[in-house]
Amino acid sequence: MPVVKQNIERADPAIIEALGRAGVATVHEAQGRTGCLAPHLRPVWRGARIAGSAVTISAPPGDNWMLHVAIEQVREGDVLVLAPTSPCTDGYFGDLIATSALARGCRGLVIDAGVRDVADLEEMGFPVWSRAISAQGTVKASLGDVNVPIVCGGQAIAAGDVIVADDDGVCVVPRGDAAAVLDRAKTRIAAEDEKRRRLAAGELGLDMYDMRGALEALGLRYE
Amino acid sequence: MPVVKQNIERADPAIIEALGRAGVATVHEAQGRTGCLAPHLRPVWRGARIAGSAVTISAPPGDNWMLHVAIEQVREGDVLVLAPTSPCTDGYFGDLIATSALARGCRGLVIDAGVRDVADLEEMGFPVWSRAISAQGTVKASLGDVNVPIVCGGQAIAAGDVIVADDDGVCVVPRGDAAAVLDRAKTRIAAEDEKRRRLAAGELGLDMYDMRGALEALGLRYE
Amino acid sequence: MPVVKQNIERADPAIIEALGRAGVATVHEAQGRTGCLAPHLRPVWRGARIAGSAVTISAPPGDNWMLHVAIEQVREGDVLVLAPTSPCTDGYFGDLIATSALARGCRGLVIDAGVRDVADLEEMGFPVWSRAISAQGTVKASLGDVNVPIVCGGQAIAAGDVIVADDDGVCVVPRGDAAAVLDRAKTRIAAEDEKRRRLAAGELGLDMYDMRGALEALGLRYE
Amino acid sequence: MPVVKQNIERADPAIIEALGRAGVATVHEAQGRTGCLAPHLRPVWRGARIAGSAVTISAPPGDNWMLHVAIEQVREGDVLVLAPTSPCTDGYFGDLIATSALARGCRGLVIDAGVRDVADLEEMGFPVWSRAISAQGTVKASLGDVNVPIVCGGQAIAAGDVIVADDDGVCVVPRGDAAAVLDRAKTRIAAEDEKRRRLAAGELGLDMYDMRGALEALGLRYE
Amino acid sequence: MPVVKQNIERADPAIIEALGRAGVATVHEAQGRTGCLAPHLRPVWRGARIAGSAVTISAPPGDNWMLHVAIEQVREGDVLVLAPTSPCTDGYFGDLIATSALARGCRGLVIDAGVRDVADLEEMGFPVWSRAISAQGTVKASLGDVNVPIVCGGQAIAAGDVIVADDDGVCVVPRGDAAAVLDRAKTRIAAEDEKRRRLAAGELGLDMYDMRGALEALGLRYE
Amino acid sequence: MPVVKQNIERADPAIIEALGRAGVATVHEAQGRTGCLAPHLRPVWRGARIAGSAVTISAPPGDNWMLHVAIEQVREGDVLVLAPTSPCTDGYFGDLIATSALARGCRGLVIDAGVRDVADLEEMGFPVWSRAISAQGTVKASLGDVNVPIVCGGQAIAAGDVIVADDDGVCVVPRGDAAAVLDRAKTRIAAEDEKRRRLAAGELGLDMYDMRGALEALGLRYE
Repeated sequence: MPVVKQNIERADPAIIEALGRAGVATVHEAQGRTGCLAPHLRPVWRGARIAGSAVTISAPPGDNWMLHVAIEQVREGDVLVLAPTSPCTDGYFGDLIATSALARGCRGLVIDAGVRDVADLEEMGFPVWSRAISAQGTVKASLGDVNVPIVCGGQAIAAGDVIVADDDGVCVVPRGDAAAVLDRAKTRIAAEDEKRRRLAAGELGLDMYDMRGALEALGLRYE
Repeated sequence: MPVVKQNIERADPAIIEALGRAGVATVHEAQGRTGCLAPHLRPVWRGARIAGSAVTISAPPGDNWMLHVAIEQVREGDVLVLAPTSPCTDGYFGDLIATSALARGCRGLVIDAGVRDVADLEEMGFPVWSRAISAQGTVKASLGDVNVPIVCGGQAIAAGDVIVADDDGVCVVPRGDAAAVLDRAKTRIAAEDEKRRRLAAGELGLDMYDMRGALEALGLRYE
Repeated sequence: MPVVKQNIERADPAIIEALGRAGVATVHEAQGRTGCLAPHLRPVWRGARIAGSAVTISAPPGDNWMLHVAIEQVREGDVLVLAPTSPCTDGYFGDLIATSALARGCRGLVIDAGVRDVADLEEMGFPVWSRAISAQGTVKASLGDVNVPIVCGGQAIAAGDVIVADDDGVCVVPRGDAAAVLDRAKTRIAAEDEKRRRLAAGELGLDMYDMRGALEALGLRYE
Repeated sequence: MPVVKQNIERADPAIIEALGRAGVATVHEAQGRTGCLAPHLRPVWRGARIAGSAVTISAPPGDNWMLHVAIEQVREGDVLVLAPTSPCTDGYFGDLIATSALARGCRGLVIDAGVRDVADLEEMGFPVWSRAISAQGTVKASLGDVNVPIVCGGQAIAAGDVIVADDDGVCVVPRGDAAAVLDRAKTRIAAEDEKRRRLAAGELGLDMYDMRGALEALGLRYE
Repeated sequence: MPVVKQNIERADPAIIEALGRAGVATVHEAQGRTGCLAPHLRPVWRGARIAGSAVTISAPPGDNWMLHVAIEQVREGDVLVLAPTSPCTDGYFGDLIATSALARGCRGLVIDAGVRDVADLEEMGFPVWSRAISAQGTVKASLGDVNVPIVCGGQAIAAGDVIVADDDGVCVVPRGDAAAVLDRAKTRIAAEDEKRRRLAAGELGLDMYDMRGALEALGLRYE
Repeated sequence: MPVVKQNIERADPAIIEALGRAGVATVHEAQGRTGCLAPHLRPVWRGARIAGSAVTISAPPGDNWMLHVAIEQVREGDVLVLAPTSPCTDGYFGDLIATSALARGCRGLVIDAGVRDVADLEEMGFPVWSRAISAQGTVKASLGDVNVPIVCGGQAIAAGDVIVADDDGVCVVPRGDAAAVLDRAKTRIAAEDEKRRRLAAGELGLDMYDMRGALEALGLRYE
C-alpha cells in the first residue's frame, strides 16, 4: 500500500552541518567504515559538499510521480534520496523540479537512477549525485512511497537519516548515531592535521604508524 | 557489399539550428519521449551544444578506415555518427581526423566506441560524444559503410536525420519529423517559463499540475 | 611469499621525460599499438600529463597496507602502480598518503581500484588514474608484494617500466624499449605536424594517405 | 501516439523453417555478417532452435501491458520480440503469458529485459532469449506499440522480419532478404561438410584456405 | 564493533515451507512486488527450490572468516546470507564449508560474491545463489558481523527473515509478514490455475482481464 | 612485428595431468592464491575438467586469422589461449576450427572473447572457457602473434605455461612452477579428506581450525 509518511524526525541541524564540513571519507571512517553508497553514484558536477536530512522516495522504474509528492515533504535542509524499485537510468529529475526543490530549501538530490538538464543544475548550484545522466523522460502513472525505509546505492536509508555528500560520493549516517559519529569525526580530523604535517616533512607511514614489526611478524621479506 | 551513399537529404538548416537551441531533453520530450541514445554516450568535454545532419558510419571493431571515407561526404553542418559492428572501445578518432573534420565544416562526432587526444579535442572546440576515452589505436584493413541506416546507442539512425547533442547526451530526430518536432518543442519551451516562475515562487507541482485527485484515486495514503 | 624488491632499475630520466611530453596516444602508436591500460582507468582530475618509473604493488582487495610499504621504495620521478589481487573499488588512497608520496617525489598513482579525497588530490596537484572514486576505507591486515611483476588494467607491468599518463589514459613502456620507442615517437610527431597542416587546409585523408586505390580494390562502391 | 499495427506481412513459412534449421551462425554469415543481436540475450534454457516472424513490441520499463495486446496479433509461427524503451531487467513474462502465447501458436520470445518462471518455461518447452532472469513484477499502466520498428539487442527489427534463435543467440533477417539469405546459407552449409571432413582428417586451415602466402606478404615472421 | 547475535527469532517452519513451495515469483507478487534480490544473484546449479530463515553475515571483501563463525549459529532450516562490505567476486565458499553447513542442517547459501567447487556443490545437492563463480581464495584476517541487518542484492535483510529461492532468483520476506504473505500467495495460486486453464484454451488476456476499455481510454489505436 | 614462436617448452605431461585432476581451486591455493583468470571466463558447457600447455594467441578485435596460424603449433595435450588486443565479444571460434583443433590433439580453448556453435562444441566434447557466446563473425585481415606472452582474463600467460580449467574457471601455473605446485596441491588434497570427514561429522570449523582465540583477541563480541 503506497504511503507518504509526513512527520519524520531529523537530527540536530548543527550536527548535520558539522558532518557536512567533515566530508564523506572522514564521516565514513568515523562510523566504523560503514555507510558509503556505491561508487556508481557520482556528482553531476564537481565541487559541491552538502549534508542534510533524508526525505526518501521509492519509485517505480521510469516513473517520477513520487518526486512531486516528496517535494511537499521537504523542509529547509533536507536532501531528496530516490531509489527505483528496479534498476533504471531514466532522467527522473531536471531543472523544473530542481527549481521547486530549491524553493523548498532542499540541499540536493541523491538518486540511484538518471537526471537531466545537468548544465542548468550546475548553473543553479543544485547538487545531484546520480547513477546516470540521461534525457530519457519518465511517466506519472504509478504510485510509490515517501519517507519509508529504502535501499539506495546498496545502503539502507531511513527518512531523517543524515546524508553527507561531496566529490568522493555519498554516505549515510543513521539519525540516532549522528552525534556520536560527529564526535569521532572531530577526533579524527584533529589527529589528521598532525599526521599530514609529519608526512609532508618526509616521515614514512611505516614509521609514523609503527608498522615495521607487524609486517616482519607476518613474514614480509625485503630483497 | 560495402557502400558509400553520396547524396543524402538533409533537413532545413534553420530547423536544425533551432532544435539545437532547444536541447536534447526538450527535443526528446517533443517527439513523444523517443530518440534518446543510451546514456553511456557521454561528452568528452562539457559545455558543447550542437545540432546537425547525420553522416552515418558502420565500421568493423578496431578499424577506423571508413572515418576517412566518411569525411569526404561531410558538408557544413553535418555530424559524424559511427557505430561499430560489434562492441568496441578503441580510439577511432583523434586530433588529426578532427582537424580534417573541422576543415569540412563538421559540427561534431557521436561514436559508440572510443576516441583519443581528448585534451586537444577540447582545445580545438571539437565536440564528441563517445562510449569511451581510449588511446588504443585502430587499423585500416576492412571496409564498412557510409550513409546507410545504423543503430547507434540503441537508436536507429538514417543518414540525414537530425542529431541534437548537449551535456545531457544525444537525441536523434528523423529528418521528416524535424519541423513538427520543433513546433512541439517551441510550445513546450513557452510553457516551461511560466512553470519555472511559479515553482520558484514556491507553488508545488502537486498543485500546479493538479495531481492530488489522481493520487488519491489510486490509493495514495498520507500518514 | 610476500616480498619487497628494493633495488629496481629505471630508464634514463631524460627519455622518461620526453615520453611524457609525447603523450599516451603517440607513445602507444610508437610501440606498435601496444601497452594501453584498459579505458576504465580514468584521471580523477583532468589536465595532468606525467611519465615516471613504475613502483608496482600487488595488494589484497580492501587492504592498502602495502601502499605504505611501497612509498619507502619511491624515488624522485617514480609512479605508484597498484593492482588488487581481485577486483575492488575501495578507496585505497587519499590525501594523507598523497602527502607522503609527494614528499618522496612521487609523480602520481595508477590504481585499478578506488581512491578518495579527490578534491584534495586535485588541489595538491597529485595526479591519479583509477577505476573508481570511492570513500570506502580499507584495512591493514594482509601482506602483498612491492616491485614484483603485476597485471594492471589488463597490461603486464614490471617494476621500473615507464608509465605515461594523460587525459587519454595510461600506457606502459617496457624499460628496455624506452629509448627505441622514444625515437619512433619523435618521428611520428614530426610527421604529424605536416599532416595536420594539410588536413586543416582541406586536403582529405583519402588523398593524403592515398587510400582510394586500396578501397576500390577491396570493392567499396559509391552510389 | 501508441499504435497496434494489425496487418503485417510475413516471409514464406518454408523459407522461415529452413532458416531455422540453418541456425544463427550460418544465417548471420550468409547475410554478410549482419543481424546478430547482442550476446547479452541468452536462452533461459539450452537446446531450443527456432525461427519465426517477428511480432514486435515497444514497452515502457517495468510495464508489460503491451505483451497482452501483442498476443492477439500472434499467428501460428510468430515470435514475440520485445524491447523496453529504456534499459530494464524486470520479469515481463512468465508461465501464464507463455500459456497464452503457446495457445496462439507462438514459437518463442526474444526480450531485451527479464522473464520469470523459467523452470516452468523449460518444462512447457517455450523458448525464451532474454537479458535477465528476474522475478521482479511489472505494472499495466502505460501504453506502448505493437508491430512498429524497434531496436532490440542493438539490431533494428521490423514486424514480419524473420527471427532465428538457438544456443548461439538471436539473428534477424529482413523479411525481403529471407529467400536470398537462405540460398547463400545453403551454399555455405554444403561447403562446410567438405571442410569439416578435411579438417577432421588433419588438414590445416592454413592450407585448406591457402593462407600462407597472404600471411607472409603481410610480414608474419616464424621463429 | 564486530558482533555475533546469537538468539534470533524465526518464522513458523510450516509457513516457511509453504512459502518455499509457492516460489519466488508468487511470493514476491504476494507481498506487493517487493523483496526480490537483484538478478545478478543466480543459482550455481538449476533446479533447487528452497526456503529458510536468514542467518546474515557482513564480511570484508576477500575475507571469509565470518562464514565459519556464522555456521555455529545455523539451525536446521536456516539459509546463510552473506553480503560483502564492498563489491567482491572472490570464492568465499566451497565444498568443505558446504559439508559443514549441511551437517548443521543449512538449506543453502545466498551470497553477493563468489563461490567455488561448484561441481561438488551440485553433486552434494547444496544450493547456492551467487554473483559469481570464482576459485579465487579468501583470507581469514578481519572481523565482520553475524545476524546484523545487511543489504544483499539490493534488499535489506534482517536475521530471521524468510529467504525463498529458486531458478527465478531470491526473495526476502520480513519475518513478521510471513503469515500474511503466505495467505495472499495461496489466494494468488488458486486464481492462477483457473487463469492458466482459460489461457490454454485460447482465451486472450485482453478479454480475461477485461483490458480493452482501459486501453482504448488511454488512446491505443489499432491500424 | 607479428611473430609466431614455433619451439616452446612444455611441462612434464604427467605433472600436467595431475594438476588437471587436482582442479582449479586446489591448484590456485597451492600456488599461494595466485593465477586465477577473471570469473567472466565461463565454460560454454559444464562438466569438463582439463589441463594442458598454453599455446598463446594475441589477436586483433574481430579478427580470428591467428587462430588458424596457431593450430599448426598445437601438439597433443595443448590448450589454445586467446586474448584480443582490445575488448571484444565476437565469435572467433566455432565447430569447424574445433574440428581442426581436435584433430591436432588440442584439449580445449580459453578465450577472452566470444565463441559460437556451442551446441556442436558440447556434442563434440570440445571444452571452451569464454567471455561470451556470440555468433558474430570475424574477419581475416590483420596479423597478431602466436606463443608470445599475453594477458588473458587479467593474468599474464606465457607459451608453455600450464592451464587448468574446470567448472570453477581457469587457472594458470607458470611452467617452471608446475612440479612444486603439484606437490603442494597433493599435500592440500590429503589434508582435505580428513577435514571433510570431521566437518561432515558435525565438528565446527571454529574448533577444527582453532579460531576462537584469535577471534576473541581481535574483539569479536557475542550477544
